[in-house]
Amino acid sequence: MVPSSPRLFYFNAGESGSWRIHSNTNLIGQPLPDAPKLDVLPGFTQLPNLASGWQLQGITSNDRYVTRDEKTALIARQPDLGRPLATHTALIAISKNQSWWDLTQDERRIVLEEKSQHIAIGMKYLPAVARRLYHCRDLSSDQPFDFITWFEFSETDSRAFDDLLYSLRTSVEWQFVDREVDIRMTRAMDL
Amino acid sequence: MVPSSPRLFYFNAGESGSWRIHSNTNLIGQPLPDAPKLDVLPGFTQLPNLASGWQLQGITSNDRYVTRDEKTALIARQPDLGRPLATHTALIAISKNQSWWDLTQDERRIVLEEKSQHIAIGMKYLPAVARRLYHCRDLSSDQPFDFITWFEFSETDSRAFDDLLYSLRTSVEWQFVDREVDIRMTRAMDL
Repeated sequence: MVPSSPRLFYFNAGESGSWRIHSNTNLIGQPLPDAPKLDVLPGFTQLPNLASGWQLQGITSNDRYVTRDEKTALIARQPDLGRPLATHTALIAISKNQSWWDLTQDERRIVLEEKSQHIAIGMKYLPAVARRLYHCRDLSSDQPFDFITWFEFSETDSRAFDDLLYSLRTSVEWQFVDREVDIRMTRAMDL
Repeated sequence: MVPSSPRLFYFNAGESGSWRIHSNTNLIGQPLPDAPKLDVLPGFTQLPNLASGWQLQGITSNDRYVTRDEKTALIARQPDLGRPLATHTALIAISKNQSWWDLTQDERRIVLEEKSQHIAIGMKYLPAVARRLYHCRDLSSDQPFDFITWFEFSETDSRAFDDLLYSLRTSVEWQFVDREVDIRMTRAMDL
């Protein structure tokens, strides 16, 4: 048995978990089933038996689009995950269509940043909205989404987070999104 | 049980397989054990029990570096795998060091093409040398290599293939390679 990648994580929705799910909205394509709680667990964890709920997988990886200047600016502003003030979190899972994947790197960069300001939009909401991107498309198992992004923010910044999503969802890049689910949570121990 | 990605493949080295291994050379870092034969099998295959030998995994994915102009030129010249004349094949497995993965996309492109002519070198040997790239780094399991490239060519073009490798291995890009294994094979039924 080959061990899991140290960058692999499981997103388990079911009866138990550190995050209490408040809403589960499908914006494009098929929904995910409702579940009361969610946990994010390292890939090497002995997983609980999922009698109900669902599981997604994602892996952290190298940056695909940022330039050095953008990365320097992001590193200067972006907070770590797990801040005590960040009681609110969102899991946004998306897939992009075949037209996107048939684009070359230079074409994808033009759509993502020059036409859609994806990186600039994220920057605008730093350090309020912390984020981590997980890739799903090139995992060994056939995953229902291409990407999972995990966002953490305070209750006060929830409105700002909705503004961030509005900017992305009305961008040219989102014309290539063919499935999107938006799950909102708060820390389970806070309730 | 989640099904395998349809783009996942296994590289099984052992007592049986469609390809007879003639040489197994480690150029950088740890070697792979010797084995007499090798098979490339789709990820959904029921795998034979590997009492001996080794297994690598790789997944085909979207292009990461080529521009539209380069892709158009490649598509016009590159042959499919499985040509009857292509009795010789090579599996080149490499890993790149952390310095590579810490580069941003624009920096990696400069090293790969502007400084090393990786894409132009491959183009020069088309259609003689057919190739397919498999990604290993972001698979669910912890893989020993980042990439596997599979090359197919005729006996006559074996020398040309060695020239291609020489050009790549003396490039700036190869300063980021921290493991490389080179396995040469011929069709098992030809022997």
